[in-house]
Amino acid sequence: MIYITRRERFSAAHRLFRADWNDALNLETFGACSNPNWHGHNYVLHVTIKGTINPETGFVVNLKDLSRVLKDTVILKLDHKNINTETDFMQGKIVSTENISVGIWDVLYPEIKKLGAELHRVRIEETENNFVEYYGE
Amino acid sequence: MIYITRRERFSAAHRLFRADWNDALNLETFGACSNPNWHGHNYVLHVTIKGTINPETGFVVNLKDLSRVLKDTVILKLDHKNINTETDFMQGKIVSTENISVGIWDVLYPEIKKLGAELHRVRIEETENNFVEYYGE
Amino acid sequence: MIYITRRERFSAAHRLFRADWNDALNLETFGACSNPNWHGHNYVLHVTIKGTINPETGFVVNLKDLSRVLKDTVILKLDHKNINTETDFMQGKIVSTENISVGIWDVLYPEIKKLGAELHRVRIEETENNFVEYYGE
Amino acid sequence: MIYITRRERFSAAHRLFRADWNDALNLETFGACSNPNWHGHNYVLHVTIKGTINPETGFVVNLKDLSRVLKDTVILKLDHKNINTETDFMQGKIVSTENISVGIWDVLYPEIKKLGAELHRVRIEETENNFVEYYGE
Amino acid sequence: MIYITRRERFSAAHRLFRADWNDALNLETFGACSNPNWHGHNYVLHVTIKGTINPETGFVVNLKDLSRVLKDTVILKLDHKNINTETDFMQGKIVSTENISVGIWDVLYPEIKKLGAELHRVRIEETENNFVEYYGE
Amino acid sequence: MIYITRRERFSAAHRLFRADWNDALNLETFGACSNPNWHGHNYVLHVTIKGTINPETGFVVNLKDLSRVLKDTVILKLDHKNINTETDFMQGKIVSTENISVGIWDVLYPEIKKLGAELHRVRIEETENNFVEYYGE
Repeated sequence: MIYITRRERFSAAHRLFRADWNDALNLETFGACSNPNWHGHNYVLHVTIKGTINPETGFVVNLKDLSRVLKDTVILKLDHKNINTETDFMQGKIVSTENISVGIWDVLYPEIKKLGAELHRVRIEETENNFVEYYGE
Repeated sequence: MIYITRRERFSAAHRLFRADWNDALNLETFGACSNPNWHGHNYVLHVTIKGTINPETGFVVNLKDLSRVLKDTVILKLDHKNINTETDFMQGKIVSTENISVGIWDVLYPEIKKLGAELHRVRIEETENNFVEYYGE
Repeated sequence: MIYITRRERFSAAHRLFRADWNDALNLETFGACSNPNWHGHNYVLHVTIKGTINPETGFVVNLKDLSRVLKDTVILKLDHKNINTETDFMQGKIVSTENISVGIWDVLYPEIKKLGAELHRVRIEETENNFVEYYGE
Repeated sequence: MIYITRRERFSAAHRLFRADWNDALNLETFGACSNPNWHGHNYVLHVTIKGTINPETGFVVNLKDLSRVLKDTVILKLDHKNINTETDFMQGKIVSTENISVGIWDVLYPEIKKLGAELHRVRIEETENNFVEYYGE
Repeated sequence: MIYITRRERFSAAHRLFRADWNDALNLETFGACSNPNWHGHNYVLHVTIKGTINPETGFVVNLKDLSRVLKDTVILKLDHKNINTETDFMQGKIVSTENISVGIWDVLYPEIKKLGAELHRVRIEETENNFVEYYGE
Repeated sequence: MIYITRRERFSAAHRLFRADWNDALNLETFGACSNPNWHGHNYVLHVTIKGTINPETGFVVNLKDLSRVLKDTVILKLDHKNINTETDFMQGKIVSTENISVGIWDVLYPEIKKLGAELHRVRIEETENNFVEYYGE
């Protein structure tokens, strides 16, 4: 079993808030992240897949295929977007880094299967000081 | 003459567009950066000042004073903000990295003077692949 | 289960040596790290906690709480300190990165419990080329 | 159980191809990496070992010993080399990052045993966007 | 005057040697870099241009245009290539980082002019510990 | 004229204080950096030299020679040392990053001359957020 990680980046706007809470409660809970006018980040995404080495190619999967899948199913929906209002798999959810990582997992898991490998981990850095990892359970 | 650089970071939303242009022209010129729903970045700011070493302290300026000035006059106005709508010194301007660097220069120049040093350079990284530097002229 | 990592930094002096060994044996075993006049590092600490997402907030824990706990119980005791002589939880121990990681684990474990999550890993980088990880067992 | 990681680097040439395939098939499968004239990388290697802390020294192993073993058995065979033609443990294999990581594992495993610890993971970054991890099974 | 820097990367093979010197003299002068079987690097290129801000757009140049020029005139000729044998602007030259930086300058200078800006600096990192800068004179 | 930069690192202890000031004044001026028990850093040093390319070798200077000079005249005096008490060229000075950069300049300037190049800049990072540059005047 070999683990392959591909790094991708996306720049997006978001806001942490609940529509069913008033501004004061949102501010108390989410701090400056609840700014109604949005803020944003350069998110760094590390997607790790696992599988066996194909003896024909020396690859678990062809990185070009992996990169294309990440771009098509994840990056295009997040990069230069407002995650709260534009990213389909985040609608109706609080846009925390935790929830984004679960959202990306759910989108990617079947796609990685189609490549003949298995999704192992989704890791997202929101800033250089904070990151979240999700292993699907 | 010694040059001192302090790194600060701010996470903000912005949009590149002109209100006097239609969406198609904005899109053609600014690409995905013109998204009307905003996007954002983790901007990295490097502020370089220059001055002579104070023989009493071995410092050009006390870094605590420099850091406080940067926080009070620049970072508080940008971090977790929408630069287009909330940052006072960017109102009425296209929020390009070029224009942000000039805006920060204009705000900081007199403040650094008060510390007994001179502003030398404002550098802003928008992503790991792009940065802008301004020397005041 | 989601894993959240917070990065913190501390700059400290230390020395690797045993008081019950002579200088020659200390030097042979610990090399330049045994310098009786101390040396120091910019240590980088990654603390990883795990827990479930609170559906009310989208958070495992509020990062502000996590950061405050790390500052109060760990960073204040290490940053700009001499770890050998000043850090309470390292007294009587060889100040290797291995032992620092165990010391931090022991201090942090009950504190993370109080936040409603579980400490998963303590990771310390002593230099860009060496790091240590401890999972509590 | 403590995990210790040492980072090393090597700059090498390589090529992805199969001698039993024609150029067109190599190009289709391996893309620009199949260039018959070679290309190269600054590979970054992270070797993680695990073991218990020796109470005499506070170390799992002496990092000088670990570093020497990595240099002698791995780095000398890869750095400033053509991996396809010069690295003994890669002869007859497709020089993918996956296969290099397995090759390094096989070379290192008995050497780490001799140091009184156990090899836990070999991680290789080929570029800043791609890395491979192998845990020996 | 504003300075804009774009970072690009290329992975290439090269060798430092002179065909008119014997192997011993090449080895003495160039060390392991003279390996006849090639080695390689992940080169990091920073291209800095300067110009005035276009008040219509807030840009010195459109970064998409700058990136396209860098790809077409520089990166395509270096990435996944053998610089000694395949890069047209390096033929007949010793492939030192110094000479690569001059070669890139000469190729880029007229292209940046066409974009309405001026090339200011070419910087190349060969490894994380060494870089070269050229300002055209 | 080409500029070559070599990165080196040293881990050292230091303290900011004046023996002719009392502890309260030292603390007020230098903060936690005045800790009488020392603290320390992983300093990162970038030394930039300038010169013309030797057409015989493609080098300004042989990097092996530059690296050896840096090690012998600078790094050996700083790495794993207490800069206040052990580094000859810092005796009697306040050990600020500013003063270290001037001290290194004065030591290195004649040595770089002997290599046939000229020292251009000494840059020292004390932490990831602060660095100092000195150009010799």
